[in-house]
Amino acid sequence: MMSDAAARGAAVRREVLGPERADRPPEPFAVPFREWVLDAAWGQVWDRPGLDRRTRSCVTLAVLTALRCTDELEMHVEAALRNGVTPDEIAEVLLHTTVYAGAPAGNAAFAIASRVLSAQEGRPE
Amino acid sequence: MMSDAAARGAAVRREVLGPERADRPPEPFAVPFREWVLDAAWGQVWDRPGLDRRTRSCVTLAVLTALRCTDELEMHVEAALRNGVTPDEIAEVLLHTTVYAGAPAGNAAFAIASRVLSAQEGRPE
Amino acid sequence: MMSDAAARGAAVRREVLGPERADRPPEPFAVPFREWVLDAAWGQVWDRPGLDRRTRSCVTLAVLTALRCTDELEMHVEAALRNGVTPDEIAEVLLHTTVYAGAPAGNAAFAIASRVLSAQEGRPE
Amino acid sequence: MMSDAAARGAAVRREVLGPERADRPPEPFAVPFREWVLDAAWGQVWDRPGLDRRTRSCVTLAVLTALRCTDELEMHVEAALRNGVTPDEIAEVLLHTTVYAGAPAGNAAFAIASRVLSAQEGRPE
Amino acid sequence: MMSDAAARGAAVRREVLGPERADRPPEPFAVPFREWVLDAAWGQVWDRPGLDRRTRSCVTLAVLTALRCTDELEMHVEAALRNGVTPDEIAEVLLHTTVYAGAPAGNAAFAIASRVLSAQEGRPE
Amino acid sequence: MMSDAAARGAAVRREVLGPERADRPPEPFAVPFREWVLDAAWGQVWDRPGLDRRTRSCVTLAVLTALRCTDELEMHVEAALRNGVTPDEIAEVLLHTTVYAGAPAGNAAFAIASRVLSAQEGRPE
Repeated sequence: MMSDAAARGAAVRREVLGPERADRPPEPFAVPFREWVLDAAWGQVWDRPGLDRRTRSCVTLAVLTALRCTDELEMHVEAALRNGVTPDEIAEVLLHTTVYAGAPAGNAAFAIASRVLSAQEGRPE
Repeated sequence: MMSDAAARGAAVRREVLGPERADRPPEPFAVPFREWVLDAAWGQVWDRPGLDRRTRSCVTLAVLTALRCTDELEMHVEAALRNGVTPDEIAEVLLHTTVYAGAPAGNAAFAIASRVLSAQEGRPE
Repeated sequence: MMSDAAARGAAVRREVLGPERADRPPEPFAVPFREWVLDAAWGQVWDRPGLDRRTRSCVTLAVLTALRCTDELEMHVEAALRNGVTPDEIAEVLLHTTVYAGAPAGNAAFAIASRVLSAQEGRPE
Repeated sequence: MMSDAAARGAAVRREVLGPERADRPPEPFAVPFREWVLDAAWGQVWDRPGLDRRTRSCVTLAVLTALRCTDELEMHVEAALRNGVTPDEIAEVLLHTTVYAGAPAGNAAFAIASRVLSAQEGRPE
Repeated sequence: MMSDAAARGAAVRREVLGPERADRPPEPFAVPFREWVLDAAWGQVWDRPGLDRRTRSCVTLAVLTALRCTDELEMHVEAALRNGVTPDEIAEVLLHTTVYAGAPAGNAAFAIASRVLSAQEGRPE
Repeated sequence: MMSDAAARGAAVRREVLGPERADRPPEPFAVPFREWVLDAAWGQVWDRPGLDRRTRSCVTLAVLTALRCTDELEMHVEAALRNGVTPDEIAEVLLHTTVYAGAPAGNAAFAIASRVLSAQEGRPE
């Protein structure tokens, strides 16, 4: 049974990552990780009231770029758009992060975000 | 002679870091680094119009926390306050970053920010 | 009010870090971090039954060494001793980690662990 | 000619990584790296008596997860199984590491380990 | 309009990365990043007289290996050859870096450099 | 008894780090680390003929800066001077690394190197 925090987290995660991604069940092996993430990351942190989702997305993009988490970045560029960060603002966040994390971190992040944004433009509304 | 970008950068840096810190001359050995930072970081990035300084401060705190740049963090907690990020919002940025960068990164950042905020409270206005 | 996981976590943390360290209240600014750590780290992870505390300590030392979290390492060398890892096994964990994380990471970790172990020897039993 | 340590290391490596992987010759360009690894990593560290292979595997998984060495992780999930770490214990090591290294590091490691474990289940015994 | 530093940087970049790679236009989204890199990285740093390009290439390979920037490494192994670093010297730089950054960082770098060097040998002169 | 590689490594280390630093005995707890470093780092890598010590020092400074190993950096700025890298070239290596590793990594490295160079100037010859 899910904890309260995990249940709240599951709802926030679905809004931020979108139903298509959020509704995929985890691999059986990864179930303990998914439960922890729903509770500790989405329920206990993303759901807190003190910072708007737009700023949370900017912060997330910055950290993922700095730590070179390229797999997660794709998902969180989409999430940032969903949370109201414009493509131009995403570019500013990535360029700002480049100064602090170095050119290769920025280069990789711009490549991924370019791909996500091109794919989005091709989609029917 | 300073480039245009470096001159603009020096002004932004002084506003963000405060005159006390900004007006200290660099060590002679570090002059090439200072010049590069004024131009490439402060002039060409912090001075860009597409993202407000408050969000730039949140992004900076997130990256410095994630990369464990504890020395720089002190300076940028002060800068964040100067740019209008409240102490509660700083705590949210650090907690949000903790999820993505791990508990020790968060622990170190909260310790530094606690120290800066206590020192600020003690100051005459 | 503390969640169930946080209450369980507080008990585990006190056993692992020792009462002297565990009973220090956090800085007011760091209270949200402490709450998250008690719940998400100590309650939801350290308290899980599937891995003994001795192995959890070895894993923790390895990660802190690899990520160069030197502040936390001191505390977790003490915790490892409390969890039954011998000084010789701590040395093996740090040397093993050195291969994967590089000589400077190992050097810093050995310096900290040497200091902790010397201090422990000087203590009355 | 191989040093004594490298010869001992080659034997340990073959036991831990399995003959299929261990017997592939390195690219000619990578020969100096292979020789160093056999001697310095496998001969001088993995072969030391003070820590059992099961714990060495847990430590290795933790470091590779924390440093986001996703390529090496696949090989060392297989090695951990060979060294007697159960799939449930691997999940505990990865979840424990997530607390210290952040959710994206954990996410990537769980994805890789899930793939390795599914592939293993499909194999004839 | 390009700054002077960016114009100088574009010329250096073309010499170091080769025309085939340098003349590909960036994705529209990545234009601000490209402009920053030409000015801040290639114009203001690579173009400085105080260090020869051969040593700059060795330093670049070392940093990219240590930070696990595998995407950039391919491009900079080619650049190192163009700047007069021999394949044997590249191997020495990567092995030296391995000591400080750990075996997995070295392993990944040797794999990429092996691929680049094999591909180069197959090319008509 | 020391391996041949460790004995060669001890001699190289003494030349590069200077007798004052090299002749300090390690803490008893850190003896296995010291032995590994003499053999695997100094004997098997620094002693290899294929790359001059001047370039090895540049590579070492770059990696330590990128990985934020500030403790080791002090020792290796001194070593670089001993290996014939001039202060101006050290500045170039650190600035070059800044582009790839980010401004805070560069800032910390310039601060340490400034301190070492000022201390050296004050010494009697």
